[in-house]
Amino acid sequence: MVITQKIEFTSKKQLDFTDITDAVRDTVRESGAKGGMVVVFSQHTTMGVVINHHEPMLLQDMTHVLQRLVPVDAQYAHDVFELRSTRTPSDGRSNGHSHCKAMLLGGDVTIPLADGELLLGERQSILAVDLDGPRTRDIIIHIVSV
Amino acid sequence: MVITQKIEFTSKKQLDFTDITDAVRDTVRESGAKGGMVVVFSQHTTMGVVINHHEPMLLQDMTHVLQRLVPVDAQYAHDVFELRSTRTPSDGRSNGHSHCKAMLLGGDVTIPLADGELLLGERQSILAVDLDGPRTRDIIIHIVSV
Amino acid sequence: MVITQKIEFTSKKQLDFTDITDAVRDTVRESGAKGGMVVVFSQHTTMGVVINHHEPMLLQDMTHVLQRLVPVDAQYAHDVFELRSTRTPSDGRSNGHSHCKAMLLGGDVTIPLADGELLLGERQSILAVDLDGPRTRDIIIHIVSV
Repeated sequence: MVITQKIEFTSKKQLDFTDITDAVRDTVRESGAKGGMVVVFSQHTTMGVVINHHEPMLLQDMTHVLQRLVPVDAQYAHDVFELRSTRTPSDGRSNGHSHCKAMLLGGDVTIPLADGELLLGERQSILAVDLDGPRTRDIIIHIVSV
Repeated sequence: MVITQKIEFTSKKQLDFTDITDAVRDTVRESGAKGGMVVVFSQHTTMGVVINHHEPMLLQDMTHVLQRLVPVDAQYAHDVFELRSTRTPSDGRSNGHSHCKAMLLGGDVTIPLADGELLLGERQSILAVDLDGPRTRDIIIHIVSV
Repeated sequence: MVITQKIEFTSKKQLDFTDITDAVRDTVRESGAKGGMVVVFSQHTTMGVVINHHEPMLLQDMTHVLQRLVPVDAQYAHDVFELRSTRTPSDGRSNGHSHCKAMLLGGDVTIPLADGELLLGERQSILAVDLDGPRTRDIIIHIVSV
């Protein structure tokens, strides 16, 4: 059985963590799926997905780490629209840094599913990481049960 | 068929790689699973999982890279317990850096399974990366065969 | 149903992105698989896989980010062959940096499959990232449909 659900949320800051754990859990419970795996998948190129502790000061720390490793205020060739060979419609944001952060974080997590429950640890939350917010975003919850 | 196995090990250093390849292979063989995939999943927020070459000098290099990118001796708001709004019981470790490293590495890998064998490359090992050791840890091996 | 396909390509630079989206899509279509997931898996320890926007200037930016975070011209113990305890045959490349970059990027992505289509976003491409090129490389496309 394969169930795909898209959920929507709005990020509030440029770099913003949204806890989607409850939404994923609800989707799994409503699906009735018992065993298999759940893929949480970002269809955006400037949004990552991570699993970690949802503790506000920690998310602030991680924001600082990401901004230090891939600074917003450095120069990115992606942001020089005149240089780009692909002329995809752009909303004019300078978001080269956001894409690079997204590649470091990754945009998919695969979570084991057994006895109808996600096998998350006690302090684990599923966090969508908008790296180019604020925006309205969606994310895919894809359940494969066997 | 879904088989979930938890294996336990003890890390010996603050940042420590444990090779769990044989444990994963044994679990797969005992399961009798032939085709599908295997998720190796960390339920801890300060432990990652990577697949790479198990060569001791390389693991030392990667330790240096991680310590340089996310220094142990920087300041992390997560470690100022008075500032934290969530009062989860803490063992008093200053491990903000460990969580940030875990988010960079990721805590799940999905490995193809065919003809009863993990499709790992010749020099690939599955490494659990404790970022807040030494500790006794466990990790989930989740086999989904179809 | 499980289908495993290996595709081959040649990277042209030391750090080189190869777009394998079409190859993955073709493999999925030829398989006839309808629902499940697709794992794109690197069997190499100096090659990663990411999903992001295939825009040449952006890939140049990401190259700079990776070279800054894990410089080619730093010292890596892995490259001092005399120090290594494991005497795997080496082609003599100094590629400690390549392995470290591969661990940061990760070498597997799991993509939802529904109605016979990969659920990729409009601007998402699947990119194999050779971190020790140029080389002839292969990558595994592993389809699990239920």
